[in-house]
Amino acid sequence: MRDRPVVAVLEGARPVRGLERVADLAEVRIVQAPDLDRALDGADVLYLWDYFSGALPAAWHAAGSLRWLHVAAAGVDKLLFPGLVASDVVVTNAHGIFDQPMAEYVLGAMLHAAKGFGELRDQQRAGQWSWREGRNIAGTRALVVGTGSIGRATARLLRAVGVQVEGAGRTAVGHDDDFGRVHASADLARVVGDVDWLVLVAPLTPATENLVNAEVIAAFPPTAVVINVGRGRLVDEEALVRSLADGRIAGAVLDTFAVEPLPPGHPLWSLPTVLVTPHLASNTDTWLDDLAAQFERNFLLWREGRPLPGVVDKALGYVPSRS
Amino acid sequence: MRDRPVVAVLEGARPVRGLERVADLAEVRIVQAPDLDRALDGADVLYLWDYFSGALPAAWHAAGSLRWLHVAAAGVDKLLFPGLVASDVVVTNAHGIFDQPMAEYVLGAMLHAAKGFGELRDQQRAGQWSWREGRNIAGTRALVVGTGSIGRATARLLRAVGVQVEGAGRTAVGHDDDFGRVHASADLARVVGDVDWLVLVAPLTPATENLVNAEVIAAFPPTAVVINVGRGRLVDEEALVRSLADGRIAGAVLDTFAVEPLPPGHPLWSLPTVLVTPHLASNTDTWLDDLAAQFERNFLLWREGRPLPGVVDKALGYVPSRS
Repeated sequence: MRDRPVVAVLEGARPVRGLERVADLAEVRIVQAPDLDRALDGADVLYLWDYFSGALPAAWHAAGSLRWLHVAAAGVDKLLFPGLVASDVVVTNAHGIFDQPMAEYVLGAMLHAAKGFGELRDQQRAGQWSWREGRNIAGTRALVVGTGSIGRATARLLRAVGVQVEGAGRTAVGHDDDFGRVHASADLARVVGDVDWLVLVAPLTPATENLVNAEVIAAFPPTAVVINVGRGRLVDEEALVRSLADGRIAGAVLDTFAVEPLPPGHPLWSLPTVLVTPHLASNTDTWLDDLAAQFERNFLLWREGRPLPGVVDKALGYVPSRS
Repeated sequence: MRDRPVVAVLEGARPVRGLERVADLAEVRIVQAPDLDRALDGADVLYLWDYFSGALPAAWHAAGSLRWLHVAAAGVDKLLFPGLVASDVVVTNAHGIFDQPMAEYVLGAMLHAAKGFGELRDQQRAGQWSWREGRNIAGTRALVVGTGSIGRATARLLRAVGVQVEGAGRTAVGHDDDFGRVHASADLARVVGDVDWLVLVAPLTPATENLVNAEVIAAFPPTAVVINVGRGRLVDEEALVRSLADGRIAGAVLDTFAVEPLPPGHPLWSLPTVLVTPHLASNTDTWLDDLAAQFERNFLLWREGRPLPGVVDKALGYVPSRS
């Protein structure tokens, strides 16, 4: 390593923060997308503060000296283009930062659906005092699809409030500390028959795309609520809409969609048992500072040649789970 | 006791259920309010299935043989008229039945406010994809006013998800297993300065009426959210509305109001940071069966002369806490 490595930072619309210490130790080049190739020329590190940007493939030709790429996001499905996958560049993500907010969002979504808060809000806006029965979540059954750090934090939080939790992941596991039992995702249609909550926190990969297909949706019991904080394309959205519109399942709380922003006039906007939120489950009032502090920590490790946390398996498309 | 005691049941609009076993052992008289006096003539037991009825004072002259009154509700503020308080009639309530649903409602209300679900629902209804930051509830501070069984269940559930909880009750307690510390309700204005969540589950008594007065509300920090599942008159509703309308506190989730149903045009219907629900926090899909099973259990104990759970202290106006 040179004495002063070069760190290219793709900033985007939201001002990057927390680079003071890094700038003491490295040459920091903060740029917007059109200047990314110039910033990458001779850069050792690329920090994608603008985690939604698709600018990297077009600038990749200039990334010959790149050794490490850190993205300030959990999902890397949009990032992993073939050139990056084939390269030796180490990719890390914001592993762990979103565990607590996403677990809380999921628990909040369950209580929102169980207590009928969405329809109660609609009644409030209509000035309508109209009694309805909620249900308890204690004792209900949740299946969490995705056994990474977010899925594990979610499972632990749900267990803490008395929900019965199992998991679904790439391969079945007989005993797991967080999930009890982990089913193989390929078996979803066979295991969702008594599930009250299907919680999607899985990464989007070729293996998980359309995982919740029409066959899985048809196997849900009438009490089932789908909570998706992973990626829209994990689900056959049209089959889900039909099942919700027909009242064959109880509801959905969706933070992510096949197309984002959710297009105007899409039926999910108006279904009474659906809550639509604009891809924010991972965010809190501290998330930007948390992301900034994480990059600083990782940079100091990288500079000393120590192992980095949250290294993405570029073939799998996510950070493999610790168990 | 006679071999076959007489049990009068005030039914109301919702058909009473679960009296099969009681009817094997007693003469059961199921009536509506206009016939309550006739049913009470010679009755040993009165079962107020219609817990909202105000019919008892007018029929009280016929209750000369009454020894036990059970009400299928938690709050007894509307029930305790002077003649009943002065009598030897033992009063029991639906102690314990509402602990889990109300604790879950409170947790759901906190997550609803923390994640901005109410305003997100309004945006959804307007077809609007507009990002906003939520906050985590882990590490925030809740003060639960009311240290009975519902308050305790609430405290335990909030602690389970990482919320810092303290309590407020009639008298201060240095160490309490569920609350850690319990403050005296009279000191509220001095202790709410760093509270994120003020949770009201206290009964309405002369000592608690207007407990959250303008002085207390003025002492809240800007992050404060008021959650009221107790009684509307615990709060100075006008002062609360002013503080919410001015944005001096962060929000409120209210299930109970000074006047119910909440009158048309009341400002609480339309404030964006307020969720109004129609007095349903205690109810789930199993509550009627739970209430029925509780009365049957209590009746069998009473018939054998054994102590009853959930005996109301008629002077205090609630079931005294176990600790």
